[in-house]
Amino acid sequence: MRGLNEHAIIKEIIRHLGHPAPPVSRIGNDVASIPCGEGMLIAKSDMLVAKTDVPVQMTLEQAARKSIVMCVSDFVAKGVRPRYALISLGIPKGWERRQVLELARGFKRAKEEFSLEIVGGDTNECDDLVIDCTMLGFAGKTVPRSGAVSGDVVFVTGLFGNQSAGLRILTKGASAEPSFRERAVLSVLEPQARLSLGVALAEAGLVNAAMDSSDGLAICLHEIAEQSNVHVEVDRVPDARGVRVFAEEHGVPLEDLVFYGGEEYEIVGSASASLFPEACRVARGLGCSLTAIGRVVKGKPGVTLKVDRRKTSIRKKGWIHLA
Amino acid sequence: MRGLNEHAIIKEIIRHLGHPAPPVSRIGNDVASIPCGEGMLIAKSDMLVAKTDVPVQMTLEQAARKSIVMCVSDFVAKGVRPRYALISLGIPKGWERRQVLELARGFKRAKEEFSLEIVGGDTNECDDLVIDCTMLGFAGKTVPRSGAVSGDVVFVTGLFGNQSAGLRILTKGASAEPSFRERAVLSVLEPQARLSLGVALAEAGLVNAAMDSSDGLAICLHEIAEQSNVHVEVDRVPDARGVRVFAEEHGVPLEDLVFYGGEEYEIVGSASASLFPEACRVARGLGCSLTAIGRVVKGKPGVTLKVDRRKTSIRKKGWIHLA
Repeated sequence: MRGLNEHAIIKEIIRHLGHPAPPVSRIGNDVASIPCGEGMLIAKSDMLVAKTDVPVQMTLEQAARKSIVMCVSDFVAKGVRPRYALISLGIPKGWERRQVLELARGFKRAKEEFSLEIVGGDTNECDDLVIDCTMLGFAGKTVPRSGAVSGDVVFVTGLFGNQSAGLRILTKGASAEPSFRERAVLSVLEPQARLSLGVALAEAGLVNAAMDSSDGLAICLHEIAEQSNVHVEVDRVPDARGVRVFAEEHGVPLEDLVFYGGEEYEIVGSASASLFPEACRVARGLGCSLTAIGRVVKGKPGVTLKVDRRKTSIRKKGWIHLA
Repeated sequence: MRGLNEHAIIKEIIRHLGHPAPPVSRIGNDVASIPCGEGMLIAKSDMLVAKTDVPVQMTLEQAARKSIVMCVSDFVAKGVRPRYALISLGIPKGWERRQVLELARGFKRAKEEFSLEIVGGDTNECDDLVIDCTMLGFAGKTVPRSGAVSGDVVFVTGLFGNQSAGLRILTKGASAEPSFRERAVLSVLEPQARLSLGVALAEAGLVNAAMDSSDGLAICLHEIAEQSNVHVEVDRVPDARGVRVFAEEHGVPLEDLVFYGGEEYEIVGSASASLFPEACRVARGLGCSLTAIGRVVKGKPGVTLKVDRRKTSIRKKGWIHLA
């Protein structure tokens, strides 16, 4: 008998537990929202397990930093600045000071990068390195997955494919042109989260729906489509520089690298067509850029890719734990 | 070279990271306190790893429940009612529906037992079962470890030794009289946290210092003594019924089972001598009882056991991960 995957496990648990009573958010949102004073307490936990999340070439400092980036990224898409973190560690027996210090350096880098306070945690023995990060922040509201409306521009905050290529280079020894190799590998080892951009776009009320792309671009687009009850038409494949050549060289469909990868910590969102130019200005002001990749249209929830007059459907697949 | 233990790891990380700026609590407290509106947001993470925290006889339902009890227990000692929980799971590949359902049942039992809302979490693949629980609550203040003053009565909310005996029965096959065996084993598999009692004592302002005894009674007494800069004189060994006989039968010092065990989720606290009778009344009203085990005296921080005119010092030892 095959084991349950991540989604089946979550479904089974929610079926048994039920959701919290409103106005607390339902389980399964990118972040949890809990009424708190005049606003909301925003909370999110994200667990890094070395076995699946840390390629052997990643240093412990990078792994520690990544565990925080993973959690920050969900706050980014929801437009909320995370303020506090708790970090629970599962650490293999026999670790030396040097290894602990590497972890500590990674936490410190992330703490400074995102202006977080680390307020507590827990330390345990575990055969594999496990870092569970819980992040807390406060907000008036959050950007939902469900707010996309017909006519919206669908955009991304960065281009895709570097991470998938980088992972193939790191784990399968795939060859690549040196400067692309460097970019692709760095995107895996030192992922970026666009905190200032996410918060600025949300504060200015420029985003209708958003999700962070860590499970892959295809999953994001599908989630936004389903939860907003709209169809997404993608008319531009947002491949990062060099990804197309890498795909051709390795006989991999470009779409696999761009849509079905994961571990990119970009925002995938929708904005009213009339406000999108202003959103682009806000992004430029922060040294970032938004790339329009399609539109929201009426129709059955789903995602269609329409380039060069060819129409294909983008499947809902990406990174799924325990698949 | 020997590996670092839990305390050395935490020390190293704090040395590198620094503590958050006041009024946020320092790292290493039982719970983190974060300013929030007029009061404080209280947060705590506690990780259960099957390898060290789950004896083979413990069902998955019991393990899931225990992961929540561990975290509730810290709130209990601080006098704060936990309200919300996030649960991150590391689950071995190949789990069937039946196993996930057992976990879900345990979470549900704990959720109902402690009137918690489970608001989110994360699911991952891990070779060992890992459950990291983050709990959130709100409070005006918390009971510190540092508030004990000379003259205070030192008390516990339950008697000790069942868990240590139970663990020996479960993991080493130690023999025991049937009714004691049942109590001892149950204390390991179904630990209790005295939430209503902890909250009631704190709300009535009856406790000066407190800590939950999950790392062992000796460690609690030492922590309270050190952080309050007082000496604790214990004049009664709070052994649970049957523990003395079990200790004699197995040639184990009684003190080992009572002071140096761990996994009892009782409150160890100090109360003004004048208020202690009132604290006992509050406990009785909730069907609980407090047991005075000694006094706080002036002197060098430390813990002395003084029974039958013999004076011995209680060492600061108990459960330490990665020891």
